[in-house]
Amino acid sequence: MIRNVELETARRLVLEKGRPPGAEKVGLLEAHGRVLAENICAPMDQPSFNRSPLDGYALQAADTRGAAPGSPVILEVIDTVYAGGCSTKEVTGGTAVCLMTGSPIPEGADCVIRQENTRAVQGRVEIIKELSRWENYCFKGEYSHKGDAILDRGELLRAAEIGVLASLGIAAVPVYQKPAAAVISTGDELVEPGTEPAPGRVYSSNCYTIACRLKECGVKVVSTGIVGDDCGDIERAVAKVIDEVDFVITTGGASVGEKDLIMETMGNLGAEIIFWKIKIKPGSPALFSVLKGKPVISLSGNPFAAAATFELLLTPFLEKITGNGSLGPNTLRAVLQNDFNKKSPLRRALRGHFVQDDSGKALVEIVDRDQSPGNLQVALNSNCFIDIQKGSAGLKRGEMVYIYF
Amino acid sequence: MIRNVELETARRLVLEKGRPPGAEKVGLLEAHGRVLAENICAPMDQPSFNRSPLDGYALQAADTRGAAPGSPVILEVIDTVYAGGCSTKEVTGGTAVCLMTGSPIPEGADCVIRQENTRAVQGRVEIIKELSRWENYCFKGEYSHKGDAILDRGELLRAAEIGVLASLGIAAVPVYQKPAAAVISTGDELVEPGTEPAPGRVYSSNCYTIACRLKECGVKVVSTGIVGDDCGDIERAVAKVIDEVDFVITTGGASVGEKDLIMETMGNLGAEIIFWKIKIKPGSPALFSVLKGKPVISLSGNPFAAAATFELLLTPFLEKITGNGSLGPNTLRAVLQNDFNKKSPLRRALRGHFVQDDSGKALVEIVDRDQSPGNLQVALNSNCFIDIQKGSAGLKRGEMVYIYF
Repeated sequence: MIRNVELETARRLVLEKGRPPGAEKVGLLEAHGRVLAENICAPMDQPSFNRSPLDGYALQAADTRGAAPGSPVILEVIDTVYAGGCSTKEVTGGTAVCLMTGSPIPEGADCVIRQENTRAVQGRVEIIKELSRWENYCFKGEYSHKGDAILDRGELLRAAEIGVLASLGIAAVPVYQKPAAAVISTGDELVEPGTEPAPGRVYSSNCYTIACRLKECGVKVVSTGIVGDDCGDIERAVAKVIDEVDFVITTGGASVGEKDLIMETMGNLGAEIIFWKIKIKPGSPALFSVLKGKPVISLSGNPFAAAATFELLLTPFLEKITGNGSLGPNTLRAVLQNDFNKKSPLRRALRGHFVQDDSGKALVEIVDRDQSPGNLQVALNSNCFIDIQKGSAGLKRGEMVYIYF
Repeated sequence: MIRNVELETARRLVLEKGRPPGAEKVGLLEAHGRVLAENICAPMDQPSFNRSPLDGYALQAADTRGAAPGSPVILEVIDTVYAGGCSTKEVTGGTAVCLMTGSPIPEGADCVIRQENTRAVQGRVEIIKELSRWENYCFKGEYSHKGDAILDRGELLRAAEIGVLASLGIAAVPVYQKPAAAVISTGDELVEPGTEPAPGRVYSSNCYTIACRLKECGVKVVSTGIVGDDCGDIERAVAKVIDEVDFVITTGGASVGEKDLIMETMGNLGAEIIFWKIKIKPGSPALFSVLKGKPVISLSGNPFAAAATFELLLTPFLEKITGNGSLGPNTLRAVLQNDFNKKSPLRRALRGHFVQDDSGKALVEIVDRDQSPGNLQVALNSNCFIDIQKGSAGLKRGEMVYIYF
């Protein structure tokens, strides 16, 4: 076991124990919101035929020489193509084929004239404008060619991606299976929301926050619950879920108090303890162990400390086990808008509120200067963390800081 | 019926026909990702009692006068409080109560000393540091008071909001019911992905893109499908779903071609036609009608035009019918990174890619200078629209433009 690890080391150690997810093939609508498990190449040219971009007539540009409203060129209309149709006629000099937007352009034609620049007359069409070759002519493969890389493994499939897959005729895609997790909150002080707390008790919120964050990251949460500060109870709770899940998150009991029992419990269960405590505020009392090959991440019982450590410690791990390459944290540089006078012997994550000014410049304001790790409500007004380096003597308004979302 | 309406007018006309959603009460985990239907005030003080922020001893600051490692003050430990417990003893001069982080501070005490600044000795404790009154003392109601506004109606409930609700003991909240929609794509040229298209046919993608976007906006999509260019078929398809849904989106058939049948169909069904065509590129051939009091929004069959019109036209409507006050589009000012030489007689939405430079300045690049409305794949590289005003003669690199997401 390593004590007091750097955040980067802790991140790497947790990451190493994560297993990449398996894949399953699902239909497009079901694939929405899932993570692509294979690179996708175009199975066809797009468009798949030479295509008219407008309603009009396919013809030969040479035939339009000199055409104008006062001196129309008259062509014979040899066919009309409606949506979904396809003309087998060949356009030769003096002839034209009437087309709808999206229709295939027949052989022999080298341009398409817009309907508004023509007059239809009894099986013929008057052309009143000159065209050049390939004008209004959308080529087969103009958007993408068969074999082109379209989407990469690890991309989250949102509406635009699903639409593109459909347009290429792809009805089902391989997506990563969702990893399963359990969340266990420990603490004799915890009661479920909706009940009346005895004096000294507090409502359990970590289970809810963490279960919801896991879902937002694409993890299936199979169970959540409260367990009291009793080694036997915690052991039974962990043992009960460990075979059904890919990893477990616990909160509480990872500090140094007399009732901080997680390390003892995990030892009793035969888990390998990897590290205890991270050199960052808040959230330092985190424990990481591995039981039956499954990561067990034990976070602080303090709501903000638990939430901050979740984001800072677990993102690379969650990206690995969900296959989603872009869970963040997205890092940005921003100009600090207020002073922070505290010294930071440990690296520190401050809650910040990010905005842009009129010129698009990134600004960030510290929203909780007292930084109480129990105050979850401040999180509602913040949208990022400000990264304060170890040894900082304080920060002044106007300094450039790193923020992450 | 109004022809050729301004985008803002079109938006307002559709918005007017949207009905605000009903509400239902659901448990917290189910409420995740839903929209809050009522303002929430704190039902209790947070914390709900005077609380120790650390492991240590509650005592009277006056007793610590002169305390130092070489001259400790010795106090009698009259009680020990574990997590979830509560001492009924009163701290008086010369006494202390041992506390865990989060424990209630007993009556009589006015500060808490950190365990590290003490030495425990057989029922007593040696204090080796001076404290002032209210040091390490977290007051009842310090984070929020009973009755404080916590969350507003219309907020999307994400992990942070769910956690705060749990911490206040709220087990279930009123959320808006999801509106139901059907998506119908019309066009003889359309075939479902996964099948082999005949010459001239193309894969249906609008149904997929729009159904997924609706889901992302919090709408329940009850049916999607393709219908050919036949008035009777379209009438039957619309009539079949209209009673089950709150609104219908159709694509294709809203233009001026011979097979553009949506207006005729909606007229046959007895719908009130509100407007036809919007003064914006792409996407101008949109039709809006109301059937049995339900909005029917008919978009272009061109994939990008349909997607752009969806975003630009429907956002206020979707915000109204889902109750979600922040579906966007979020507007930002950004510096254009390339020239755009086309004239824009109509207002135009260009696909752009938004980035920030090192100083946090907002930049946007035009990603599809040919702006083909059929090319959906360009959407994969873009993350915003650039708003080009009607009458623009073109834009130069370095100009400030409005973008929306």
